[in-house]
Amino acid sequence: MSGRLARAVAASRSTVVRLTVPTDANFTGNVFGGVILAEIDRVALVTATRHSGLTCVTASFDGVDFIAPVNVGQVLTFDSRLTYVGHSSMEIWVQVHAEDLAGGPAHTVGNAFVTMVAVGPDGRPSPVRPLELVTDEDRRLFGEGAARTAARKAARARTTAGAG
Amino acid sequence: MSGRLARAVAASRSTVVRLTVPTDANFTGNVFGGVILAEIDRVALVTATRHSGLTCVTASFDGVDFIAPVNVGQVLTFDSRLTYVGHSSMEIWVQVHAEDLAGGPAHTVGNAFVTMVAVGPDGRPSPVRPLELVTDEDRRLFGEGAARTAARKAARARTTAGAG
Amino acid sequence: MSGRLARAVAASRSTVVRLTVPTDANFTGNVFGGVILAEIDRVALVTATRHSGLTCVTASFDGVDFIAPVNVGQVLTFDSRLTYVGHSSMEIWVQVHAEDLAGGPAHTVGNAFVTMVAVGPDGRPSPVRPLELVTDEDRRLFGEGAARTAARKAARARTTAGAG
Amino acid sequence: MSGRLARAVAASRSTVVRLTVPTDANFTGNVFGGVILAEIDRVALVTATRHSGLTCVTASFDGVDFIAPVNVGQVLTFDSRLTYVGHSSMEIWVQVHAEDLAGGPAHTVGNAFVTMVAVGPDGRPSPVRPLELVTDEDRRLFGEGAARTAARKAARARTTAGAG
Amino acid sequence: MSGRLARAVAASRSTVVRLTVPTDANFTGNVFGGVILAEIDRVALVTATRHSGLTCVTASFDGVDFIAPVNVGQVLTFDSRLTYVGHSSMEIWVQVHAEDLAGGPAHTVGNAFVTMVAVGPDGRPSPVRPLELVTDEDRRLFGEGAARTAARKAARARTTAGAG
Amino acid sequence: MSGRLARAVAASRSTVVRLTVPTDANFTGNVFGGVILAEIDRVALVTATRHSGLTCVTASFDGVDFIAPVNVGQVLTFDSRLTYVGHSSMEIWVQVHAEDLAGGPAHTVGNAFVTMVAVGPDGRPSPVRPLELVTDEDRRLFGEGAARTAARKAARARTTAGAG
Repeated sequence: MSGRLARAVAASRSTVVRLTVPTDANFTGNVFGGVILAEIDRVALVTATRHSGLTCVTASFDGVDFIAPVNVGQVLTFDSRLTYVGHSSMEIWVQVHAEDLAGGPAHTVGNAFVTMVAVGPDGRPSPVRPLELVTDEDRRLFGEGAARTAARKAARARTTAGAG
Repeated sequence: MSGRLARAVAASRSTVVRLTVPTDANFTGNVFGGVILAEIDRVALVTATRHSGLTCVTASFDGVDFIAPVNVGQVLTFDSRLTYVGHSSMEIWVQVHAEDLAGGPAHTVGNAFVTMVAVGPDGRPSPVRPLELVTDEDRRLFGEGAARTAARKAARARTTAGAG
Repeated sequence: MSGRLARAVAASRSTVVRLTVPTDANFTGNVFGGVILAEIDRVALVTATRHSGLTCVTASFDGVDFIAPVNVGQVLTFDSRLTYVGHSSMEIWVQVHAEDLAGGPAHTVGNAFVTMVAVGPDGRPSPVRPLELVTDEDRRLFGEGAARTAARKAARARTTAGAG
Repeated sequence: MSGRLARAVAASRSTVVRLTVPTDANFTGNVFGGVILAEIDRVALVTATRHSGLTCVTASFDGVDFIAPVNVGQVLTFDSRLTYVGHSSMEIWVQVHAEDLAGGPAHTVGNAFVTMVAVGPDGRPSPVRPLELVTDEDRRLFGEGAARTAARKAARARTTAGAG
Repeated sequence: MSGRLARAVAASRSTVVRLTVPTDANFTGNVFGGVILAEIDRVALVTATRHSGLTCVTASFDGVDFIAPVNVGQVLTFDSRLTYVGHSSMEIWVQVHAEDLAGGPAHTVGNAFVTMVAVGPDGRPSPVRPLELVTDEDRRLFGEGAARTAARKAARARTTAGAG
Repeated sequence: MSGRLARAVAASRSTVVRLTVPTDANFTGNVFGGVILAEIDRVALVTATRHSGLTCVTASFDGVDFIAPVNVGQVLTFDSRLTYVGHSSMEIWVQVHAEDLAGGPAHTVGNAFVTMVAVGPDGRPSPVRPLELVTDEDRRLFGEGAARTAARKAARARTTAGAG
């Protein structure tokens, strides 16, 4: 796979808009976290599939924060971009914004770092093309993503040992 | 709420079994991560609702690891228990096991720490009863949960500043 | 299949908890019977699959009673256990309880006897291992299940002749 | 409600056709029983609602038999008609037929007797208009339905006492 | 395929009834157009599959009008019949009626002309048997369908050129 | 509403990406038309809601063409923009593109003109702000949309008279 050309972040950037409807609401009229999580998973999968051209599977979800409640009737926008690419894994940053229909700017309501792994037809990890870093932000996010990936592996080892 | 009696971990422990079926599968015959995430969210919600007796909303997902792939046709078991309870937030540890029908013991395939917040009819955080710690494991997990909660707040502040 | 060892009731006993949500409600705020039926079918399938280690199909539903209405917001628990095992068919008893979050004991809201048949890759009935009866209740329920199975076959013959 | 005019069986008779698709299939390529059950519940609800003009809830499922497997790709027809009407409950007979697209007559694959109860805005049973019996078959099925309803009540009492 | 016998309109006529429920409603209590569209697509697929005995795919939707709003709680009836059959395409007319449970006649709420194409195992168009025209209405609708099919092709060519 | 400021096309332009998965497929491995229709309806609803700031309902679907089959595994992009705005109705043009993961440009697979009507809390049509036309393409599409809207009304009158 080393022969494959790197591909820029912009080539796999993906967007989903979604109008929240009455069936998305819990007892207080806010949108279920599960509804938002499922959409985050789907848009991250699109980004990972576009970059790799391969079947991808969710490996981890980290730093999923629901910063502000979402009211039913708001329009949500999910923006998905690669931050870090390893051998067969990709870290995708998904930002969620909500739009007040009465006007005013969209505000951030959620955030997640999703790690996807590309797999071959046998379901085993498969190498992916490198990420071409174009802007300064690309480079900064790549470094942060590499650090999070390392921390995630360490935390996983610790937790498993401590909590199992 | 200080007058409310503490309730033990066992009182809100919850279990879900689920047979994975062909429609849960991706292109390689493994179960979609999104299917497992949705079930984790639902069982954590049951635990938080049982402990608090209130409507609860998902605040964060952390340390979600899919340790091993799940083959369609396996039975999954989701075990959900409280680790930490703050003023209005609860950290729930969900462990996912897969069962090979041909025999042999169930093995761990996934793991997540979900933070839920209890809310009142106005959708604002509402205090919850304390967690009664009975066993040594209860106390150890409570300490680890408190540390994760603090780290989560710090990481969120950092990430928002750095990545925004 | 006669060579297969019997397996006790406890080995395939299965549990599902489920928080009922606004989308489960009909016009009077009670949970749809269809929502409960679907969950009964799923948990019975898990029990039959665990006992047999084979693909199972629903053959009949009997004695499905919705004893008390379920209010949206209650937590439902589905307990599923084998009562009777024939050559390739298994009768599963599913009990449904509802939990009042304000406190007080769970009460029974529904009940069903589901017959599942194990099938081979060709979709034809396949023999299953016997049921090991351990307790007096196991033996009493087995006898009742055998009687229901016989009555079911007789009723089916009668109904088909009479109503066709 | 005694003043309400009786309504004939034909006035609430209801039909649903459904093409079975790949996502309806279990591991052997047959349609899940749960898929068929859900459709039975929905069409019975239409018949009960049409007859009563009220919100109806599922009270019991009896004599649900899956007589023959359904292959994915077949067209299913669900025919739903009232057999018996009591004070606030209605027994509905749903017959399920499968159609081979290559030709030949449709054959019966399933059968169920569903009891629905009409409820008022408070969720409590509400009286329904009587059933007008027009044909000899109407009268025969009404008698059989009355007998099943009585047997169902007796069986329920027995089972609850015996199995609880 | 010229050797295949024609089949009359009545042989593939199909009906679906559906009780609309709270989860079908938008913010004003009316049923979502998307819910009705999906049902139109499904019943048209049944008619096309019954006539051709082949897998069919949706090629176009035209003249979809929602004439009157549908209130949640009404019963909808979808009547589907062939109007025109070409070489491998079929035009299906689906009429949607709503029933007021309080009484009074059903009224038309929607209307659509759906074109389905029969395909072989390779996904390519496959010829279908001709339509036997029995009544004067059959012949009139066939002529109108042929005209719509021609207009549709012309409009498509124009739109693509104009709007691309 | 005449006092409301016009809003440009760009302000309500909306995009959805979607990875097609095995459960979207029919018997030939192509994506169901119904899956694509539902997505078209949802993204058109987002555009109409963003422009009007009001609850919107689907009034008609026209010129829905599925130009090329979609293979499961392709990424679909739905681009939605206003073409014409009347008193309370809006015509939205949704274009659907499919992306071959192996590389090469996305190609058009579907196209639809959806008319949405803004409604008030009583479910009756409510006036919407005008559309600001900025580019030559905006003006050309507006003219075409006005013509289609007029033709649609005429066709509806004709069809109803002719086909009823």
